[in-house]
Amino acid sequence: MPVLPTLHAISPVMVGIFQRTLKLRAALRHLSTFSSPAAATHALLSPCSKLLPATSWPFGLSCQKLQTRADGPTPSPAAAPDRLPFSRITPEDLSFFRTILPGRAITDPDLLESSNVDWLKSVKGSSEVLLRPQTTEEVSQILKYCNSRNLAVNPQGGNTGLVGGSVPVYDEIVLSTALMNNILTFDSISGILTCQAGCVLENLSLYLEERDYIMPLDLGAKGSCHIGGNVATNAGGLRLLRYGSLHGTVLGLEVVLADGRVLDCLATLRKDNTGYDLKQLFIGSEGTLGIITAVSVLCPRKPKSVNVVFLGCETFEQLLKTFQLSRGMLGEILSAFEFLDSECMRLLNTHLKLLNPISDCPFYVVIETSGSDPTHDGEKLHNFLEEAMTSSLVTDGTVATEDSKIKGLWSMRERVTEALTHEGFTYKYDISLPVERIYQLVTDMREHLQDRAKSVVGYGHVGDGNLHLNITSPAKDPALLAAIEPFVYEWTARYNGSISAEHGLGLKKRNYIYYSKASQAVSLMGNIKAMLDPKGILNPYKTLPDNLK
Amino acid sequence: MPVLPTLHAISPVMVGIFQRTLKLRAALRHLSTFSSPAAATHALLSPCSKLLPATSWPFGLSCQKLQTRADGPTPSPAAAPDRLPFSRITPEDLSFFRTILPGRAITDPDLLESSNVDWLKSVKGSSEVLLRPQTTEEVSQILKYCNSRNLAVNPQGGNTGLVGGSVPVYDEIVLSTALMNNILTFDSISGILTCQAGCVLENLSLYLEERDYIMPLDLGAKGSCHIGGNVATNAGGLRLLRYGSLHGTVLGLEVVLADGRVLDCLATLRKDNTGYDLKQLFIGSEGTLGIITAVSVLCPRKPKSVNVVFLGCETFEQLLKTFQLSRGMLGEILSAFEFLDSECMRLLNTHLKLLNPISDCPFYVVIETSGSDPTHDGEKLHNFLEEAMTSSLVTDGTVATEDSKIKGLWSMRERVTEALTHEGFTYKYDISLPVERIYQLVTDMREHLQDRAKSVVGYGHVGDGNLHLNITSPAKDPALLAAIEPFVYEWTARYNGSISAEHGLGLKKRNYIYYSKASQAVSLMGNIKAMLDPKGILNPYKTLPDNLK
Repeated sequence: MPVLPTLHAISPVMVGIFQRTLKLRAALRHLSTFSSPAAATHALLSPCSKLLPATSWPFGLSCQKLQTRADGPTPSPAAAPDRLPFSRITPEDLSFFRTILPGRAITDPDLLESSNVDWLKSVKGSSEVLLRPQTTEEVSQILKYCNSRNLAVNPQGGNTGLVGGSVPVYDEIVLSTALMNNILTFDSISGILTCQAGCVLENLSLYLEERDYIMPLDLGAKGSCHIGGNVATNAGGLRLLRYGSLHGTVLGLEVVLADGRVLDCLATLRKDNTGYDLKQLFIGSEGTLGIITAVSVLCPRKPKSVNVVFLGCETFEQLLKTFQLSRGMLGEILSAFEFLDSECMRLLNTHLKLLNPISDCPFYVVIETSGSDPTHDGEKLHNFLEEAMTSSLVTDGTVATEDSKIKGLWSMRERVTEALTHEGFTYKYDISLPVERIYQLVTDMREHLQDRAKSVVGYGHVGDGNLHLNITSPAKDPALLAAIEPFVYEWTARYNGSISAEHGLGLKKRNYIYYSKASQAVSLMGNIKAMLDPKGILNPYKTLPDNLK
Repeated sequence: MPVLPTLHAISPVMVGIFQRTLKLRAALRHLSTFSSPAAATHALLSPCSKLLPATSWPFGLSCQKLQTRADGPTPSPAAAPDRLPFSRITPEDLSFFRTILPGRAITDPDLLESSNVDWLKSVKGSSEVLLRPQTTEEVSQILKYCNSRNLAVNPQGGNTGLVGGSVPVYDEIVLSTALMNNILTFDSISGILTCQAGCVLENLSLYLEERDYIMPLDLGAKGSCHIGGNVATNAGGLRLLRYGSLHGTVLGLEVVLADGRVLDCLATLRKDNTGYDLKQLFIGSEGTLGIITAVSVLCPRKPKSVNVVFLGCETFEQLLKTFQLSRGMLGEILSAFEFLDSECMRLLNTHLKLLNPISDCPFYVVIETSGSDPTHDGEKLHNFLEEAMTSSLVTDGTVATEDSKIKGLWSMRERVTEALTHEGFTYKYDISLPVERIYQLVTDMREHLQDRAKSVVGYGHVGDGNLHLNITSPAKDPALLAAIEPFVYEWTARYNGSISAEHGLGLKKRNYIYYSKASQAVSLMGNIKAMLDPKGILNPYKTLPDNLK
């Protein structure tokens, strides 16, 4: 992969070559995300809770028992609270479910296993029944019944969440959207898609791409995650910089409330100002306010051209100026602006034998453009790079002209997570900050920890102000953890950041909410929960903090 | 303005000329919107209410008296309901307000006049006090006091609303955001602006343009409207096709609740998944759930190039195909796709002496592009036009190369409203529909009304699925109105449209909400209102229907 010598390497021909590599890159992205070692990380956060490594699950041991033992350490804020006094499933309940869902009320423990465990294998529940409705009416019947019986329900999409939000904590009934996977309508003029909540994101993408559209979101987990789960968790992903959040692109929702009422807000309109926009409440509420059964979403046209470059910057300030320049000169075609620091590069070199495609720099940038005209996009990129290098914002850079090299460039950003697993143990944080602050947290953390950590590395989505802060240690180190937390949360709060940029709160982060939300706001969230789900049967122990009321 | 002969007229030079005309066009757009004759229209909707033409206001006559007279006709659903049992202002109340707002608690009837009347001059309240807080703390003190005293409050921004939402119905206290007009922060890297709610939209635009950014929304009323009011009404405007709705671009809000509690959700982050996204509730709630005191918004970069073309189509189907083609070929630079029908053109010719710049067609289209490279944008437009004409989707077209001609092209779309005023009386509807349906409503309405109407015309925002349906008559005609309504609302409901695309419900349309929202949804809106404002002091008689509890 050659160092960019004259910046004349980008041409329409190259752009054509870039395009052909898209499929490979998407595949790589998918794989590398799924190989995330976050399970191990999360395990340490809660030594006395159900958040344990896969190798040491307390099978047969109830969480309540873990929580109440007198001789244990103080529970982590991430640990599960005591079981709430919901009813326990009876044979009569099972009989009811079997009647309304013939063959789709699962009680076989082997079949239940995968629904009880998150994909990080960091949280394990003990649900005894998995319900697989096919229609909104069935979801309504289930919730009406469960609400009357005071049975807790754990809604579940593709079960790809990272914060323990998608699996039961105790014996909550798992209500899976897996069989609700029909596309309902697609309007090829407006690009508005409506579908059931259980449609797998990648299937929707494939359906749309055949029709010259794309989904406005793309995630590493797209092969498994459900669109209903994406909406329930307000998934961010790779296209947020360009197409914005689901609060803007989701046009309508159908939701079943805790008592079984069906809330039909499944509009397919770009403009509708008739009353409060209720659907917004359910976007990002992690299944605690209602179960999303159908979604309508505004889809962008499929881009005809995608380009990728890899650049080096001397300082983070120059990196930010490069970002600013790219917004001005790449304008409407900018679709990703990612970064990693030299520590990340060292880990890539050391552990994965990935060679730096350019000369050594303190910071590296991956830029992607997506547009409707390959020639124009290539020219814009050329002009931008010329300006960035002439004004010394970037000191080196390369563009890929072959499939394998484009794949290689993306590897430098996407395999950092994998490289980190070889360092020993990693404490991981997904922080949202004003963009000009994101690297300061890394610098401050290094200063704060001194030589207590093996390494402190930063990478992430500059365009979204989203930092992935990773702190490594040869092994689990409670003293190091105590030095990191609550320092990292307090630091984030001081700069009005978010302690969960896109993963949500789920079980694991519910008690950290006050670092990012005012107590008045959390209190109001509690009121909304009480209004919509007075018995608290929907996804209990999630999202809201334990001390609420 | 020449008919486009060879489609080679678009060049980088022309694009440069296009750009210089932007200011003129913006000025024109502003003027034409303000000359809207909608006041007269709305007046007829409520013959026995306060919704009366400016020339026949019942000064000194209470609305309640109008409502309760036994010999009057049945009140229109748009008419004001009876006054609710709020307290009446006492000298002690005034004394309190004067203490916390020295010199800013206005009781002079002359000064109050403009706050009591909407700018259409279709609704008039009788408030006796206008409060002009400067800070969030002052708003908090006011609401805490009013809530304890059971005094109703009418929040008011620029008072440019079209549905009677921004002025008191009876003697509600007017709380104006006019003195809350400070820009708080602007991050030139991320483009995130935070400001007080009373900042005038145009002032924010000017501030941003100096910094190479723009606001994500633009309205005819921008010289008067406040950003807080824009957010409270979820204003759509001219840039929605490109930048999406405020639900996506507003990143944070500070809101004072009915009891004076300050809800701080003033985040300046693109990603934040910590709990429910409470700010969304207040976007489009028309001041009935809380008073927005500060806003943070994500601003796009200022485009370097803007182009405009005017095209003719033989059928609406071809027009829709042209829209589809433009989305594919103009892609990321498409910023407006507007239409008018031949009836509109006839009115422009007849009443305003505007000449059709192209040959006569059943339908006309105005397309605007905004991008970061004038040459590229010109080429994209050229290629699109060539394809559109080669495939016979458009039969004729023109591009403007001089300031005055660009102004002329926009006139054809923007002066339709003005032309309609010369037809006599106009019944106006602002309808949102699936884009492929929007003109069918015009056709069906013509067939339904036969010769009862003088003319039935359609124009609007194809890109947003937003139709402006206008039905004219030599004078007010109750029989014609009865033929139009509820036909127009039922038709809209049948195709899952919205009876208020962007104007909101306010006082005038509150009782029509059921045409666009399910009763479960309206009921839930009522629950939310009761939760946040249990005494109902915030903007009473607005947004929610009278029959709600």
